[in-house]
Amino acid sequence: MPAVSAGPEIERLIALLARLPGLGPRSARRAALFLIKKRELLMAPLAAALTAAIETIQVCRVCGNIDSQNPCTICTDPQRDPSVILVVADVGDLWALERAHALKARYHVLGGTLSPLDGIGPDDLTIDALIKRAHDPAVREVILALNATVDGQSTAHYITDLLHDTEVKVTRLAHGVPVGGELDYLDEGTLAAAIRSRTPF
Amino acid sequence: MPAVSAGPEIERLIALLARLPGLGPRSARRAALFLIKKRELLMAPLAAALTAAIETIQVCRVCGNIDSQNPCTICTDPQRDPSVILVVADVGDLWALERAHALKARYHVLGGTLSPLDGIGPDDLTIDALIKRAHDPAVREVILALNATVDGQSTAHYITDLLHDTEVKVTRLAHGVPVGGELDYLDEGTLAAAIRSRTPF
Repeated sequence: MPAVSAGPEIERLIALLARLPGLGPRSARRAALFLIKKRELLMAPLAAALTAAIETIQVCRVCGNIDSQNPCTICTDPQRDPSVILVVADVGDLWALERAHALKARYHVLGGTLSPLDGIGPDDLTIDALIKRAHDPAVREVILALNATVDGQSTAHYITDLLHDTEVKVTRLAHGVPVGGELDYLDEGTLAAAIRSRTPF
Repeated sequence: MPAVSAGPEIERLIALLARLPGLGPRSARRAALFLIKKRELLMAPLAAALTAAIETIQVCRVCGNIDSQNPCTICTDPQRDPSVILVVADVGDLWALERAHALKARYHVLGGTLSPLDGIGPDDLTIDALIKRAHDPAVREVILALNATVDGQSTAHYITDLLHDTEVKVTRLAHGVPVGGELDYLDEGTLAAAIRSRTPF
């Protein structure tokens, strides 16, 4: 039974939109109608943007970032500090760190975290390439910017072990109270970590 | 300041996705990354589906529905009762009624509701075309399936007045308790309407 009584083109469009994260069947129908109503202003530009992205976007051969140039904009940026590598699980994490404007460093995208339960081992990630990059004498610090989850932290430990025999300093993100966060809503583990890592006022 | 440190193609894709209803900047970034990761399975088919929709989808010249054929699938369906016209504000409402499988009738899409505050008058809707269709001797009933809002109901009254001198029966959707709804959470107006329109058990 088709979801809507329109032609196959609309049904196919709705079915594909419904596969995007954040859109269910209902919001996919709304999005499809919205696109059809804004055919010139939004639908045609979106089709063109998707086609352009398909043709141009590549995975950076140095760091694993995605970009329309290869090596990516960040790897080829002379303003970036080549002595620091920020290790992230996914490109989404890289984007989040870039929005924070915290550090003008280079990145390394692992492509996920170690997860024995999901069958993701070291060979499924770009850990080998990271270790090779870390052996470059120019690199002095590797910051492990991984999720504070079991998988994220076991990946961090695994990488730390592999870098044990190098001169590279391995660091990780600080635990603590989120900026703007209220103590009352924080879990005990975060509060205990925030007290252990307290800083002078 | 660009939102992400990727090429202009990705930034343009995210900006366009963020304009879809139900997607904000954050979910647009997630959707863009998801698309890029599923380039062959989702991104390319979505680009093709959008292009196909742009090329084929038209507004039905009879009822205002959208479809890849004109007149639309519903208007040309011989199984549909041509004596009943279901009047809806938007194509989304038509889809909702079709999913309910309530009536195999024809439709008429007004393209909105009268809304003096938004400057939407009778000439901005397809009311003239509806009145012409209702004068066809084959048409015996016009069901006003419009939102139970001030604008929806004033549009219903306006159309009822215009059909006053015809033989056509004008009806509207029943008010009452939603199926599965709990009385405790219903507003007084709906409850009062449900009691007034009570049916034999």
